[in-house]
Amino acid sequence: MKLSLLTRGRLVYRTAVLLKNSYSVSAVRDSAALLHRNHGEPSQVLQLEDLVLPQMGPESVLVKMLAAPINPSDLNMIQGTYAILPELPAVGGNEGVARVMEVGDKVKALKVGDWVIPRDAGIGTWRTAAVLKADDLVTLPKDIPVLSAATLGVNPCTAFRMLSDFEELKPGDTVIQNAANSGVGQAVIQIAAAKGIQSINVVRDRPDLQQLSERLTALGATHVITEETLRRPEMKELFKSCPRPKLALNGVGGKSATELLRHLQSGGSMVTYGGMAKQPVTVPVSALIFKDVKIRGFWVTQWKRDNKHGECLQSYIHDIYKAL
Amino acid sequence: MKLSLLTRGRLVYRTAVLLKNSYSVSAVRDSAALLHRNHGEPSQVLQLEDLVLPQMGPESVLVKMLAAPINPSDLNMIQGTYAILPELPAVGGNEGVARVMEVGDKVKALKVGDWVIPRDAGIGTWRTAAVLKADDLVTLPKDIPVLSAATLGVNPCTAFRMLSDFEELKPGDTVIQNAANSGVGQAVIQIAAAKGIQSINVVRDRPDLQQLSERLTALGATHVITEETLRRPEMKELFKSCPRPKLALNGVGGKSATELLRHLQSGGSMVTYGGMAKQPVTVPVSALIFKDVKIRGFWVTQWKRDNKHGECLQSYIHDIYKAL
Repeated sequence: MKLSLLTRGRLVYRTAVLLKNSYSVSAVRDSAALLHRNHGEPSQVLQLEDLVLPQMGPESVLVKMLAAPINPSDLNMIQGTYAILPELPAVGGNEGVARVMEVGDKVKALKVGDWVIPRDAGIGTWRTAAVLKADDLVTLPKDIPVLSAATLGVNPCTAFRMLSDFEELKPGDTVIQNAANSGVGQAVIQIAAAKGIQSINVVRDRPDLQQLSERLTALGATHVITEETLRRPEMKELFKSCPRPKLALNGVGGKSATELLRHLQSGGSMVTYGGMAKQPVTVPVSALIFKDVKIRGFWVTQWKRDNKHGECLQSYIHDIYKAL
Repeated sequence: MKLSLLTRGRLVYRTAVLLKNSYSVSAVRDSAALLHRNHGEPSQVLQLEDLVLPQMGPESVLVKMLAAPINPSDLNMIQGTYAILPELPAVGGNEGVARVMEVGDKVKALKVGDWVIPRDAGIGTWRTAAVLKADDLVTLPKDIPVLSAATLGVNPCTAFRMLSDFEELKPGDTVIQNAANSGVGQAVIQIAAAKGIQSINVVRDRPDLQQLSERLTALGATHVITEETLRRPEMKELFKSCPRPKLALNGVGGKSATELLRHLQSGGSMVTYGGMAKQPVTVPVSALIFKDVKIRGFWVTQWKRDNKHGECLQSYIHDIYKAL
């Protein structure tokens, strides 16, 4: 469990697995947790502390965390700049996979040995063990690799819903996205490929561009281009081989978002799920009026809250995993 | 017919009636028209010319224009900056009311004496008479005052559709709009009032603000405020007496649009129909993701093209008139 990961700049731009728990499985009665008592820079305010676990109740489960990632929104929550903030002191981290070690008398939906992920944000996953409410957890099949399981609930869910809820995409249609090597971006590539949808994937220029491009292509990317290419006339050539996108996915904002918009077909949608450039989305009036582009946003936390009844979240997470 | 009207700056910001035709009704065989042979500033390129009317065909109608307005988009078309441009030379003007003087043998839907307005943009209404296809015209009841009839097809249609097609507004709900004293803005005020919808109307500060405010209030405006007030804390007071708007209507763009957005309720829509500030619409990423605001555009010309079959445009124009 290395706190230093938190300060490695660009690393936080993609999903990074922070914690793979190798604590002893037996006799889990306390927990080591990355806790913060104030909002601030994660490297300044996070502390590794030993927490005594609360008593089990009839609807509780004791879980041992197996792995938990760092997402950009986890850091924004610690900084105090996110839309939802936990009460302090709080354990950091919003997703991860855990194994059920013990269940309360009234718990029917879970059993010892199950793999579970949080149903909602705010649970605090950067710890070795926790006593949680059974209702706050969703089971996963155990044939998912542990790192995939730990990172299934936020980014792939975001990708899946954005590809489903805004435009009706048929095989052969095109989606364009920036931040294509982010956690969401990689999931978009894989889910789009599984559905026969072509993807144009925009990344920032970098020394290892060729390797990155090969890696994303291996995941299923149809085209990988840089932000600079997006502004160049050769885009016209690209659109000889695939239709203009009906859907643009924006995790960056600023100029990058405006450039995505320029390539969208009339009546298409741009969906914003992140703003890594810390710049707003700027939309030409003519694109709204004459091209009828639709500018929307997506927040998976809100989606889960609006769709949490029954088993819909659980079955849907299984569907996503099958698509990946 | 005074060309000088075209150069009166802010006048073009609202609908201004250019032409009230008092030419002799009998023996209409030629037409005086405001024609342009090149794109450019209207005051430079428009010329008043006598045109010989073409022969009547079996599906033609001869009409005498009664009145035609100047809308901002008419000027953009002459400047060559609009999304659709007629072949040159072209007669200016896209809306207006005319009286049918003569009908071709096969014309069933129109008869001599009917009042008609154009079904689509591009017909060239700044002239005294024209031979047109019957299919390109829609009849109006003759109990509408001539100036209202001349200005019914563009701005009130835009207002009606924007109030109907983006959010389900119930009596007591709120709409907020800038450019509230534009042609569209005044129609929004009246249609909203007829539906029991509260309107917050933003105008630019001016010496005669009090009179303007009284005029818009007499039309049915719930609140009239300046752009400056929109940025001030007293807006909180205003929202004690009415719910935050579900719908924002933007004819300006730039800062004004961003300020409208700030007051929108979660999940609400901002619809852009004009860009008088010649600045794009800038949307904070957080408003898209966490407030789920929807940014859309509306173009009445496209709407009419998508909905022109049958009598739907005609009956709908009658509905709007009843609402006004």
